[in-house]
Amino acid sequence: MYTLYYGKGAASLAVHAALKEVGVPYELVEVDLDAGQQRSPEYLRLNPRGKIPTLIIDGKPFHESAALMLMLADRHPHSNLAPPAGSLARAEWYELAVTLANDLGNNFRLWFYPSDLGASDEDLAFRSAIQLRIESMWAMLDARLADNGPYLLGETFSGVDLMLAMYMRWSRNMPRPATAWPALQKYADMMRARPSWRHITETEALTGW
Amino acid sequence: MYTLYYGKGAASLAVHAALKEVGVPYELVEVDLDAGQQRSPEYLRLNPRGKIPTLIIDGKPFHESAALMLMLADRHPHSNLAPPAGSLARAEWYELAVTLANDLGNNFRLWFYPSDLGASDEDLAFRSAIQLRIESMWAMLDARLADNGPYLLGETFSGVDLMLAMYMRWSRNMPRPATAWPALQKYADMMRARPSWRHITETEALTGW
Repeated sequence: MYTLYYGKGAASLAVHAALKEVGVPYELVEVDLDAGQQRSPEYLRLNPRGKIPTLIIDGKPFHESAALMLMLADRHPHSNLAPPAGSLARAEWYELAVTLANDLGNNFRLWFYPSDLGASDEDLAFRSAIQLRIESMWAMLDARLADNGPYLLGETFSGVDLMLAMYMRWSRNMPRPATAWPALQKYADMMRARPSWRHITETEALTGW
Repeated sequence: MYTLYYGKGAASLAVHAALKEVGVPYELVEVDLDAGQQRSPEYLRLNPRGKIPTLIIDGKPFHESAALMLMLADRHPHSNLAPPAGSLARAEWYELAVTLANDLGNNFRLWFYPSDLGASDEDLAFRSAIQLRIESMWAMLDARLADNGPYLLGETFSGVDLMLAMYMRWSRNMPRPATAWPALQKYADMMRARPSWRHITETEALTGW
């Protein structure tokens, strides 16, 4: 049994969809980010750094969305989250999970919270550097999917597609959203039509994909 | 058979030590970072982003040191790199690997290459923000090891210890190196005495640990 502490549309989104894909029972607890519940004493007991998500596994709290994806794939080896252990495709999957977390996750964090590095929303040089870093990832991923899609691993869906869809969604209000790249637009349409994605969109009451 | 493209003391270091821990045969190819070999056409064919390391597995190039650690643990399930698949300790190991890569790896990159975000070496506010982020990780890890050491997972060595030792080494010329924290100093002494670490130090001809 799992319990996921999630924030609407936050970094919990890919984990929420992964739980649905695996098809195991889970409970959801919403953490109201606008109300600052991630800094409440109750939540800080589960995650001293006040970050979303937290996944409770066998009564113990775990964190970091990429790590939670790895954990779910590891604990459900016959799910569709990852290729078989020991395969070359699994190696590629690890590289994708780490690259998405490093090069999209971290840059989005700086995009949304520039003050983490002492910058402000008005610091245009800083913001445009982050924007370029994110856009260079879209260009690379667009080329990859155009060459060898429709999923990140080619013919086969896996959990890293849920991570990518989540990050793409976060770009929707940026000057150039991910969907400005044609293969990524097609990919977004495909991922949004997926039952797990539709389910989490409804459950979290998300708007604007 | 593996081939590791490494740079002296670079992000390849933890992977180099992990290969030695696993005890499989591997070949080493040095990429001379000072001479810019990471941007040579030969290397860019293996890693279009020009980053170190690249590990060749069954003739195919893979990247990102945390991902390579995951791959080696996956392919050598009876090595000491990770706790058994499916265990709670394995889940904790995933969280540690992702957190170290995200919160140390990325911040060190910005510390060494501030121009990635349009900042300069002289941008003191930016540099001190990064420095604080890295130091807050040392404080957290120092408390963890003091409470429940001697390794990151407690009694048992694993591959994430090689990652942490690598990142700690990178701080040696910072205003407050990791070894300024007492439990981390003890940890550094323990890790440096490890045969795999002594081997890579000699092979890469590293000085100043």
